Formats: sequence, structure tokens, C-alpha cells
Amino acid sequence: MKVKILQNKGKFEILAIMPEKPLELIEIAGRVSYESQDKIEAGSAEKFVKKLRERGHESVLEHSSMTVFFSNVSRGFTHETVRHRIASFTQKSTRYVRDSIFKVIAPPDKDVDEELVTLRINKKNRKISFKISFRQWIDLNRQMYHGLIKAGWAKQDARQVLPIGIEAPIVVTANFREWRHIFELRCSKAAHWEIRRVMLDLLIEVQKRVPVVFDDFEIHSDFAEKPS
Amino acid sequence: MKVKILQNKGKFEILAIMPEKPLELIEIAGRVSYESQDKIEAGSAEKFVKKLRERGHESVLEHSSMTVFFSNVSRGFTHETVRHRIASFTQKSTRYVRDSIFKVIAPPDKDVDEELVTLRINKKNRKISFKISFRQWIDLNRQMYHGLIKAGWAKQDARQVLPIGIEAPIVVTANFREWRHIFELRCSKAAHWEIRRVMLDLLIEVQKRVPVVFDDFEIHSDFAEKPS
Amino acid sequence: MKVKILQNKGKFEILAIMPEKPLELIEIAGRVSYESQDKIEAGSAEKFVKKLRERGHESVLEHSSMTVFFSNVSRGFTHETVRHRIASFTQKSTRYVRDSIFKVIAPPDKDVDEELVTLRINKKNRKISFKISFRQWIDLNRQMYHGLIKAGWAKQDARQVLPIGIEAPIVVTANFREWRHIFELRCSKAAHWEIRRVMLDLLIEVQKRVPVVFDDFEIHSDFAEKPS
Amino acid sequence: MKVKILQNKGKFEILAIMPEKPLELIEIAGRVSYESQDKIEAGSAEKFVKKLRERGHESVLEHSSMTVFFSNVSRGFTHETVRHRIASFTQKSTRYVRDSIFKVIAPPDKDVDEELVTLRINKKNRKISFKISFRQWIDLNRQMYHGLIKAGWAKQDARQVLPIGIEAPIVVTANFREWRHIFELRCSKAAHWEIRRVMLDLLIEVQKRVPVVFDDFEIHSDFAEKPS
Repeated sequence: MKVKILQNKGKFEILAIMPEKPLELIEIAGRVSYESQDKIEAGSAEKFVKKLRERGHESVLEHSSMTVFFSNVSRGFTHETVRHRIASFTQKSTRYVRDSIFKVIAPPDKDVDEELVTLRINKKNRKISFKISFRQWIDLNRQMYHGLIKAGWAKQDARQVLPIGIEAPIVVTANFREWRHIFELRCSKAAHWEIRRVMLDLLIEVQKRVPVVFDDFEIHSDFAEKPS
Repeated sequence: MKVKILQNKGKFEILAIMPEKPLELIEIAGRVSYESQDKIEAGSAEKFVKKLRERGHESVLEHSSMTVFFSNVSRGFTHETVRHRIASFTQKSTRYVRDSIFKVIAPPDKDVDEELVTLRINKKNRKISFKISFRQWIDLNRQMYHGLIKAGWAKQDARQVLPIGIEAPIVVTANFREWRHIFELRCSKAAHWEIRRVMLDLLIEVQKRVPVVFDDFEIHSDFAEKPS
Repeated sequence: MKVKILQNKGKFEILAIMPEKPLELIEIAGRVSYESQDKIEAGSAEKFVKKLRERGHESVLEHSSMTVFFSNVSRGFTHETVRHRIASFTQKSTRYVRDSIFKVIAPPDKDVDEELVTLRINKKNRKISFKISFRQWIDLNRQMYHGLIKAGWAKQDARQVLPIGIEAPIVVTANFREWRHIFELRCSKAAHWEIRRVMLDLLIEVQKRVPVVFDDFEIHSDFAEKPS
Repeated sequence: MKVKILQNKGKFEILAIMPEKPLELIEIAGRVSYESQDKIEAGSAEKFVKKLRERGHESVLEHSSMTVFFSNVSRGFTHETVRHRIASFTQKSTRYVRDSIFKVIAPPDKDVDEELVTLRINKKNRKISFKISFRQWIDLNRQMYHGLIKAGWAKQDARQVLPIGIEAPIVVTANFREWRHIFELRCSKAAHWEIRRVMLDLLIEVQKRVPVVFDDFEIHSDFAEKPS
């Protein structure tokens, strides 16, 4: 079959942490505010950023940013993600790109090969009925989508039958302050599993890469929270 | 069948034009800038706003706003709409609301009852194959979605099989300047037919309701453009 | 003298609470999310909005907004205020408007008629020295500004000598959620006295006008805070 | 005298162009949209970005950004600059930092040593009157500010007498698309000379550093414009 059911976590690739020394830029900007540029020295950036964060002066964290490429995530994921205003997004267009292999994100704890739904369709001369699994359904969905295109429908018309679970890679750029906000919302218990799982993995990674900016988040087994 | 295929244009309902006299508020705000509040008189608001628009001082148009409820529009529509940063959105949640009747937006110029795609599914003991129309497909999709829920899947899990064309009502509030920006992008020839058609209808309506703010857009048969 | 020293609090005038029934619009929008429009009845809006606020679903509060005209506030006030991104501003232009009467905001607890600073200026043939009060200084400042204009300087050049304390009326439109954010920052102990005092008065007023949206803020003698 | 009158253009220092290879990041992000990542090769980024710009797909330009430190610019400059919503700012605080040397931005074409204004002040026993230059006025202003602080006024109170022309260094981070918007507004004929002059210099510099993103702006003797 030409379908791929993705039950593992979404994948992220950090394309850029900007600039190369993000803490140093934050320090330079922040010290303009206090006119204390003369205090910049080896190791001062980390202490300075820590203090900013602890005092809640998060606006200075906006000067540095991070770009992340998410894949193995669905249109449901991207629909929630693009709601963040102070961020920039580029995603695969469903109007122009044709999905040859059908990749769909499935809930991690489900058996996608279990035939658990019975579908019925009445044709003139016969009644058809068959049991179907999630995977088989997605294959039918793929046939339907490609069938419409073959029958002459434009991609932007046929996309109406694409499932919300279809893979929809997206590139997200946001500044550090906004990423903190994204993690606060999207790693919380209330978040959808798909967005929560990959954001949690990303948070754990950035805690290693830029600890002083992100290490106040407490990581739990499958969520994280910002101490208030 | 419990599906509804919507080929007519999306519907809009203007929930509020705010405040009740939007031009008057814009005039009051704008005259603070020039300290010419004493020139406010009967009929002056319209002239004042016209001048603002012609001179490109659009920021003053931000004080008045409009809330619109869109229905008969799809998740594809809402995904594009929520990209506008300076606007506010509330939409039907696919995580919590269960779609009992399946409403799906279809391209206006297609015959949704033509059986134009052949689907094939191989079961152990038999090969099933049947031709299917858009409408029949959507009914299968409905069966699949409800079947998953019946089998114990949470709504936020089953939503992965909902089609992008599923109806997704949304309430949009934006200020007048942003609405002008929305109309410029979404009524253009390049816009997707679904968003273009309903936005064009809305534009024609607001040209009647608040002409001085919107009447420089030129309406063509199926698109509109802002003269540059 | 043609100067006016303002030591009383800044003044606010609520130009619009939009729409006329702001809770009702929030309810209509919010119920789209849960598809529970049928539960709208007399009195339901208030309860619905209260629940939204308590659950932290503040995005729905964005559909209603308020426009406020601030006067007796300075350029210092406006410089901080315009940093709020999701709001709209119109203010008196220092490039084009000529200040005939010089209004300047002074700290509330100071004696502006006490001659507490000695100024010195050396001219070719004489040394001038005199004691001066805040009020007298502002009058000199007025003379300097008007003198430059009389000498042929354009207003946008002469403005360089205007004091930061000069009155700078501004019209601010923001949605309810953003107003909550403004009150949280600007009514806090850490805020500048000028912005804190007038925002606190405004908060007390909106707690009367739209209680359910704002009444969780605790008002103290000269600041307010949002319970976390 | 401890004042410095700045008539030369404001200065800019590019603190960061992010990431180091900004075109490459834009290309990676943009190709996700068309699923054409396989076409990335040496030299392809520049061509890709050029096409994006020409087609008006400016949203993809948002992934790369630039941080600039402006000095020799005034509070008037910063007040206009911070109105850009999709950008981040850190500036010298007039609430906390005490200006020991008084730097003030003056119009470039004026003689700041010409005694062109007569000031008058009436004391009990004498009438004082003297002619004064811009530079001498700024020195008086410095004396007044420091005199207030010496007399016990807090910096955040004394700041009310600081002139709008006072130097106010600021760090600005914005993405490339927003910088294009800033240049469009701030390099135009209608812009204030202070902001126009330094932004024009910055534009000329970035046309060298990242030509493909900015070289469609036409540079004239003292302004620039984006071809429409």
C-alpha cells in the first residue's frame, strides 16, 4: 500500500538557533537598557540572561530566535500552531502539492490494523458491507484523492477529501520569549497529544542547547509546566 | 444519508459593526492627531474618513471593527483565515465537538453524484471494488468517523479522519484596516475559490453598510481588487 | 504664564465599549466553539463569560473591545503605552501640531513653585544666574519652543526641545483580553506613577461597567494585581 | 559644557544578520511549501529568494532576521520606531539611567550656536532677559535635569524635563519582511528627517549585505522607494 501510518512522535529538526551565540545578543541588547555595556565579559551573558528571566524581563529574550522544522505532524497540529501571532510559518501547501505517498498521523495507543469499523454502501444492484481498519481506511482515502485528480479535479478541489490527520510538515520561526509561551501552552496537560509529545521533546532538547533560557520548565513524564 | 454536501457559497452573518457609529469613533480618534476636535459636526465624519483613506492614513481605521460569523466554510478556509495576525478567532473545536451531521464543502462546479472514482479493497477471501461519487465517499467518511468513536476512540483521536472539507464555522473579529487587508488578499484572483467567494460577498455587503471605508475596492465578476 | 502644570491624575474618557452588549458577543462567539448556541438565553452571557475567564479561555474575550481617550498624560506615558502590540493608537502629532498652551505633567508630590534649581549661563559680558522652579522652567521651555518656530524652524525641528512631560493625548483601542494584560502590567507596583494612577482609575471604572470581565483584579490603595 | 549636539546622521550597527546564511534558511523553509527540497544546491538559495520576492511571497522572508543597534537617535525616533508591531525593541530606560552627558539630536541644517531666541524670566526684584542658542538651551536643560535630581527628585520624576531630542539608543530586531516594511515607510519622502536619514543609510548597507532581499528599493538622493 502507498500509505504510511505514523504513530511515533512527531519529529523536529532545529534548523537554526539565531544568532550563533544567542545569549550574547540578548546581553548586548539588555545592557543598552541599563547603559552597562562595559560590564560585558567572558561568562557574563549567561548570568545576565538568567537574571532577566528571573525578574520577568522577558521582552529582551525576543532578540534571539529559533527555527524548527516539524515533520510527522498533521494538519491538526499545524492548525493549532499557526494561531501563535508573533511567529512565522511556512507549510506544505495542500493547494499545489500532490501527496503521492499518503502519510497520516494516528493516535499512538491504537491498533491501526484492527478491523474495527463496518462500512456500508448501497449500490443499485447490491449492498456492499465490509469491516475496515484505520490503515485500510487511509488507503481508501488515498485512492479517493488520487481518483478525483485522475478524473480531472484540480488539487485545490480534491484537497477537500484529505484527512485532517494527513502529514503537514511546517517550518516555525519564533523568538525565545514566544517559544517559552508555546511550550507553556503546548506542553501542558490540556494540550492535544500530537502537539504535546513533539513539543515536549523539543523542550527537552532546547534545555540542553540553551539551558539558561528554558531550564525553569519542569519536565514530567508526558507534559511540562512553567513554575509560576 | 446523514451527510450534506455544500456547493453554494459560504455564508456570512455580520454579528457586529463596532461601535454602532464606526465613522464617528474614527473621526474622534483621528482629530486628536491634528487637534481639530472642534471641527466635528453633522456629516463631518464621512468626509474625514474618506480623506484618511485617500491619504493612506489607515492606522486610524483600526479603532472600529467588525465581527463576522462564517458558516458553510471548511477547515481549509479557517486554516488560511487564522493566519491573519491582527484579528481574533473562535471556531468549532474538532477535539471536543462531535459532528452528528456531516457537512462538507464541495467545489461549486462539480457533479457530486457522479460515480467517478473506483475504490478497491482486498479482504482475505474477496476483492471488493466499487465506483463511488463524492457524496457517497463523504458518507463512508462519516461512517468511519462515527465507527471509530463507537469503537471507543476519543473525539480528539477520531478527528484525524475528518476531511479538510468538513464544515468549520468560525467567528472572526478584525478592525477595519485589517478587514481591508483581508479583502485585498482573499478577494484576489489568486485566492482559493472557497475563501474568495464568501469574502467577495461580504465585501459587497460592507460596501453598502460602511461605504466610505470599503468602496474603493473594484468588484469584478468573481474577484475584487484594491486600486494601487 | 501660558503654561499649565498638571499634577492631578491623568484623565480617561471611555469613548466606546464595543459592541453595546459586549458579553453577548463573547457568548455567541464562544458557543460556536462548543456548538451550544441553543443554550443562549436571558442572563446566560454573564455566566458564560465568567466561566471562560475562570478557565483561562481568554482568547474568546478578544471579540469585544474598548476605546479610551487619555488626556493629561505625557509623551512618557504614550511611549510606554504604544509598546502593546495587539492594540491601536492615535495620538497628537508633535510633528504637525503646535502647542500654544504648554501643558506638562508633573510628579504629584512635588512643589512645582519651589525655586530649587540654580541655572547659570555665561554671556560675553556677563554671567547670569538665577534660581528657578519647575513651573518657571516649563515657561522658559515654552518660550524656547515658540522662539525657534518664530525664528523659522519647522515644527518637526523645534519639537526636539519639547519636554518628555508634555501633554500628549492618545486614543487607545484594545480588545478585552489585551486590556486585562494592560491592567496587569500597568497597575502593578513596578509601573511608573503616571501610567499606574490613571490605569488604576480606569480599571475601577470598568469593573463597574463590565464587572464579569475585570472583577478578579484586586484593587489596593495605589496599585492592583491579578490573582495568579 | 557637558552637552553634545548631534547634527550628523544617526548611527547604526548591525549586531546580527540571522542566521549566518539567511538566504539558505529562507530557501529550506520555502521549499517545504512546494516539497522541492531536492532542488537545493550551490547557488540555488539566491535564485529561490529572488523569485519569492518577485512573486510577492514575502511571508517566507520572515524566517531570517536582523538586529540593529541605533545610536545618535532621539526619543522622537524611538517613539515612531516602536510602533512596528512585528519587531522587538530594547532601549535605554529614562526611568533608571541618569544622563551625565547630555546628548541631543538637532536638525542637520540649523546653526545651533546662533543666538536666535530671547528668553525672559521675571524674578521679584529683577527682570532677566537674554538671547540663547540651541546649544546653550540644551545646557540649561541639562542643568535643570541634574538640579532636580540633586534636589532629591527621582530619575523617573526628573525625566519629565528631558527633551524629546535627547539621545535614546535602541536595539531593534525584526525579520526581513518587516525590515522591508520599515524601509518602505521610514525611507519615504514623508518620513521625519531623523528617522529617514539613518534608515536610508541602513538600507544602502543591507543592499550590499543581503542584496537579493533588499535591492528592489530605488535609492534617491535623500529618500528611497519600493517600486509598486
